[in-house]
Amino acid sequence: MSDKNALQVVPLGGLGEIGKNMTAVRGSGGIVLVDAGMSFPDEEMPGIDLVLPDFTYLRENAGELRGILLTHGHEDHVGAIPYVLREFNIPVYGTRITLGLVRSKLQEFGIKNADLREVVDGQRVRVGGINAEFIHVNHSIPGATAIALRTNAGLIVFSGDYKIDFTPIEGPPMDLGRFAELGKEGVLAYFGDSTNSERPGYVPSERTVAATLGKVFEEAQGRIIVASFASHLHRVAQVVETAKKHNRLVGLTGRSMVRNVGIARELGYLDIPDQMLVDQKDFSRIPDKDIVILTTGSQGEPLAGLSRIAAGTHRSVEVGEGDTVVIAAHPIPGNEPGVSRTINGLMQRGAEVLYSPLQRVHVSGHAAQEEQKLVLALLKPRYLVPVHGEYRMLKHHAQTAMSMGIPESNIFILENGSRLEFRDGNAKRLKSVSAGMFLVDGGGLADTSESVMRDRQQLSGDGMFIVVAKINSKTGELLGPPDVMSRGFMDQQTQNGTVEGSVEVVTKTLERTAKRNITDWSQLKTEIRRDLSTYLSQKTRKRPMILPLIVEV
Amino acid sequence: MSDKNALQVVPLGGLGEIGKNMTAVRGSGGIVLVDAGMSFPDEEMPGIDLVLPDFTYLRENAGELRGILLTHGHEDHVGAIPYVLREFNIPVYGTRITLGLVRSKLQEFGIKNADLREVVDGQRVRVGGINAEFIHVNHSIPGATAIALRTNAGLIVFSGDYKIDFTPIEGPPMDLGRFAELGKEGVLAYFGDSTNSERPGYVPSERTVAATLGKVFEEAQGRIIVASFASHLHRVAQVVETAKKHNRLVGLTGRSMVRNVGIARELGYLDIPDQMLVDQKDFSRIPDKDIVILTTGSQGEPLAGLSRIAAGTHRSVEVGEGDTVVIAAHPIPGNEPGVSRTINGLMQRGAEVLYSPLQRVHVSGHAAQEEQKLVLALLKPRYLVPVHGEYRMLKHHAQTAMSMGIPESNIFILENGSRLEFRDGNAKRLKSVSAGMFLVDGGGLADTSESVMRDRQQLSGDGMFIVVAKINSKTGELLGPPDVMSRGFMDQQTQNGTVEGSVEVVTKTLERTAKRNITDWSQLKTEIRRDLSTYLSQKTRKRPMILPLIVEV
Repeated sequence: MSDKNALQVVPLGGLGEIGKNMTAVRGSGGIVLVDAGMSFPDEEMPGIDLVLPDFTYLRENAGELRGILLTHGHEDHVGAIPYVLREFNIPVYGTRITLGLVRSKLQEFGIKNADLREVVDGQRVRVGGINAEFIHVNHSIPGATAIALRTNAGLIVFSGDYKIDFTPIEGPPMDLGRFAELGKEGVLAYFGDSTNSERPGYVPSERTVAATLGKVFEEAQGRIIVASFASHLHRVAQVVETAKKHNRLVGLTGRSMVRNVGIARELGYLDIPDQMLVDQKDFSRIPDKDIVILTTGSQGEPLAGLSRIAAGTHRSVEVGEGDTVVIAAHPIPGNEPGVSRTINGLMQRGAEVLYSPLQRVHVSGHAAQEEQKLVLALLKPRYLVPVHGEYRMLKHHAQTAMSMGIPESNIFILENGSRLEFRDGNAKRLKSVSAGMFLVDGGGLADTSESVMRDRQQLSGDGMFIVVAKINSKTGELLGPPDVMSRGFMDQQTQNGTVEGSVEVVTKTLERTAKRNITDWSQLKTEIRRDLSTYLSQKTRKRPMILPLIVEV
Repeated sequence: MSDKNALQVVPLGGLGEIGKNMTAVRGSGGIVLVDAGMSFPDEEMPGIDLVLPDFTYLRENAGELRGILLTHGHEDHVGAIPYVLREFNIPVYGTRITLGLVRSKLQEFGIKNADLREVVDGQRVRVGGINAEFIHVNHSIPGATAIALRTNAGLIVFSGDYKIDFTPIEGPPMDLGRFAELGKEGVLAYFGDSTNSERPGYVPSERTVAATLGKVFEEAQGRIIVASFASHLHRVAQVVETAKKHNRLVGLTGRSMVRNVGIARELGYLDIPDQMLVDQKDFSRIPDKDIVILTTGSQGEPLAGLSRIAAGTHRSVEVGEGDTVVIAAHPIPGNEPGVSRTINGLMQRGAEVLYSPLQRVHVSGHAAQEEQKLVLALLKPRYLVPVHGEYRMLKHHAQTAMSMGIPESNIFILENGSRLEFRDGNAKRLKSVSAGMFLVDGGGLADTSESVMRDRQQLSGDGMFIVVAKINSKTGELLGPPDVMSRGFMDQQTQNGTVEGSVEVVTKTLERTAKRNITDWSQLKTEIRRDLSTYLSQKTRKRPMILPLIVEV
C-alpha cells in the first residue's frame, strides 16, 4: 500500500468460526500476518483431513509479504504455517515453545531452512514497517502472548487466545500492567478473543483442576489414565507434578502426546526426569498403582489413544476393574457422541471414569465476560473487533463492550475476507477480498473443491448406480443388454427387481435414441441419467449418483 | 413359553442408547411388547432416515405376539409401530393422545384397520395372560404413563419416560400414591428411565419455563418466534397460554408442528380457538407485535422451520431487527453444530435469540437422581433394570440405587437382546437373542445392511475411481487404452497426472495378464484393483473405491 497514513486489517480466518485464525495487517511497509492456523472439517466435508484459510489474498500480494507473528503454538494459530511457508519464504516470529512446535511441524513436511525468529515476553521486533511487541498472557499452553502493533496508522492490539490466571501453573499472571500502559498510550483498535464471550463471570484458574487430580491420585488403588489435549501442556504438567507427589511413573501414549511432551521437555517447559518416564512397551511391567498414563483421545477421535483403550484395541493398554480414567477436557461441540462412546466403553470394561461436567476435570483457557471487561477497561480501545468466534460469540463480546460504553458504531463484527481500513484515527470497511476455505485431503493438497464435496455427499447419502452400455459407434445402436451395478445404494436382496427394471429403462432409452440416430454420447448419457433417475426415485425414493458409461464397439 | 411360573423380559432397543425403546415381555400367555420406538441415525449411517430395533425376535415368535402397550406418544416409543403392525396384526394399547399420534402415523403409511385400544389413567387391561395397569406420570407430553404388569412370575413395573412435576402444565402430578401402593403390593422388578441419571438433584417444573416466556412476551416489541419439539405439547401449550395473556395470535410452521397441534386440539389437549390461529400464508399480514410463530427446527435440522428462517430460505417468515427468537429446547448431543449454525444465522439477520443454557428456556422431561430415589423408595423393587440410556447413564442409575441399599447383585445392566428370566421371585440372565438395528432408508425398506453402510462410508471419504477396459473375450487382450474416471476423489486440476498414471498402470496390468492368458474376468478385476490401489495410495495417499469394469468385445 502506498498511502503512508492508512492501514488495512484483513482477517482471512477465525471470524464466524472457531479455528484457522489468520489476519493480514497491511501498512505502508508491506503485509504482516498475525497467526496462521488451521481448523478441523465439519460433517459436511467428508474425507477432509484439515481446513486452512483460503489465502488467495496472500498469493495475490505475495510481493508485499514481510513476516508472520505468532501469538502461541496451538494448531488453530500455527497449523497453516507449513502450507504458507511452502509458498512464501518469510520470517516467523514467536516464543520459544511456539517455534518449537512449529519446527517439529515443518520437519514433518520436509521444510528446511525456515527463518524462525525467537522472541521473549516484552520484546519488540520490527517487520514490514511495523513495530510488534509480544506481551505475556495466560492460556492453556506456555509461551502465549498478545501482540501490540505500532503501525503508521496507530496502535493495534491483538489479544491472541487468553485468560486471566492469577495462579497459573507456569510463568507469571497475564501482564495486565503492560495492558494498562498500552491503554494510556492510546489504543486505536483491539482485536479480542471472543471464544468464551457467552459465559458470565470469570474462568477459574487452571490450578483448580489440581484439586480434582490430587483427590484422584490419593484415592486410586489401581492404574490412573488421564486423557488431555496433547497441546494442553499446562494440564500435562499438572498431571506430571501430581504423579511426582504420589510416586507414580508417567507413561505416554498417542503420537501427538509423545511429540509435544518431547518438545516441551527439550525446551525446558516440562520437568520429567528420564527415570520417571515409562516406555509404552513396558507399561504392563509396572504395577498398576505405580503408574499414570497420559493419553490423547479426549475428544473421542476414533483412532486416538483413549478411544482405542475404550474399544479394547489399544496395543499396550487394557483397561478394567480398579482403573480410574480422567477425561480432562470438555467435548468440542459436535464431538459429544464420540466422547460418549469412549465413556461408555471404558465403563463397560469396569473402569471408573471422571469427566466434565460431572467432575471438575477441566477449566477453559479463554476469558469469560468479566475478564473481557477488565481487558477492555485497561486498553480503552477506540475500536473493538471481536475475533476468534462464531457470530453468536462475536456478538456477545460486542454487547459486553457496549455495556461498558463503547459505542456500537465503534465495534466492527467482521467476516473472513472483510477489509477494515484505519486512517487518521478512524476506521471504515472497504470492499471484501476473497476468503473461505482450502480443504486439505489425504495427499496434502490444499484445494479439494466444493464439487468434489458435493459428489462425496451424494455418494454417501444414496450411493451410486453405474450403467455400462455397449453401443455401435456408427449407428448408436445398443449391442446386448446394458450392465448395471450399484455401490452404497441398496442391498441386492432388497432391490426387489430394481436391477431388472433399470436394464429395461435403459434399453428403452437407447432404443429411442437409436431411432433418432443420436450418436452424440453426451446426449445419450443425459437421457439415460434422466430416465433412470426418474425410475429409481419413483421405485426406491432414493437418488443415487448415476454414471452412464458408453463403450463404443 | 410353556413354563407357568417363568417370565422372560427381552429388551430389543433402548439399552446402551437413547432411543428406539422396545421391550418384549414373554410369559405363559404369549409375548406383550412395551413400546415400539425408533431412533435417529448417527454420523456413521450416511443416507439413513431412521433406525428401528432389529425385531427378528418378534418374527421368530410371531405366533406368540399378543399386543403392544405404549407408555406415551414420543417417536422413541411409538416410531416403530407402523413397521411392526405391517408384519403383525396385534392390538395396541395407549392413552388417547398417544393413540392419536399413532393413528396419524399409520395414516401416512397407509395402514388401515389397526386395532387401537384406548386406555385411561388407572385402567387395567388383560393381554397375553398379563394384567397391565396404566399409571399417570409427568413427562413433556400429555398422556404419559408408567405401566405395571401383573404377570405369572410377579409384579413388574415399567416407568416409561417420567419426571416428577408437582405443578405440571396439564393434568395432575405423577401418581406417586399408586407407586406407593405398588411398593406395598411387592414389586419384583422395576425397569426405570435412566436418561437423566447423571444429573444430581431434581429437574425443575415445566412451569418454570413460563417465567422466561412471560418476560419475553412482556418485553418484545416485534415478532416472537418460538422453536420447540413439535411433540413437546406442554411447551407448545405454554406458548399458547402466554400468547393469550398478551393478545398475540399464533402461527404454526413446520409439518410436524402443524400435525401435532392439530391432533392435540382435536383430542382436547390444546385449547386454541380457531380465530387465534393464523395460516402460514397470512403471517405477513399480521403486525409483528400481534403474533407469535411456533416452529420446528429446535435441533438445527437443515430442512426444519427455524433452520430455514435462519438461512433466509423460509417461504413465509423473514426474520430481522426487532424480532425475538426463543429456542425452547436443549441440543441433543451431536446436534450442537447445527443449532449453533441456526443461532448464528438468526443473530446475523438482527434477531435477538434466547437459548439454553444462557436463558431458562428449557427444562428436561426426565427424572434426575433425587426423583429416581423417590421412585425407588416408593416401589422398593427386588430387582432394578435401568433402561432408556447409554451405558454411562444405566450405570449411574445403578449407583444411585446401590446408594439406597439395593444390592449390586439385584441390579441388571442389560443390553439389547439380553434375556432376563424371572422365576420363583428370582432373576437370572439367559443366553441373549439377536438384536441390533434395522436401518430404514428412503424407500421405507427396513433392511439396509452394514455392507451398504461401509460402501457409503468409503465413497464419502475418498470417492470412487472407475476403470473401463475393453477386452478381447477370447484372448484376454486389451483393446485400446482403458478409460478411467473418478467422482468425489480429487479435482481434475489437482490430479496432477494421476489419470495418465492410472491408465499406464492398468495397461501394464492387463498386458501382464494377457501374457499369462488369463480370461477369468474376476481375476483380472482383482489384479487391476490391487495394482491401482497401490499406485493411487502412493501417489495421493487416498483410497478411493476402485471399480474395474471389463467390457468384452
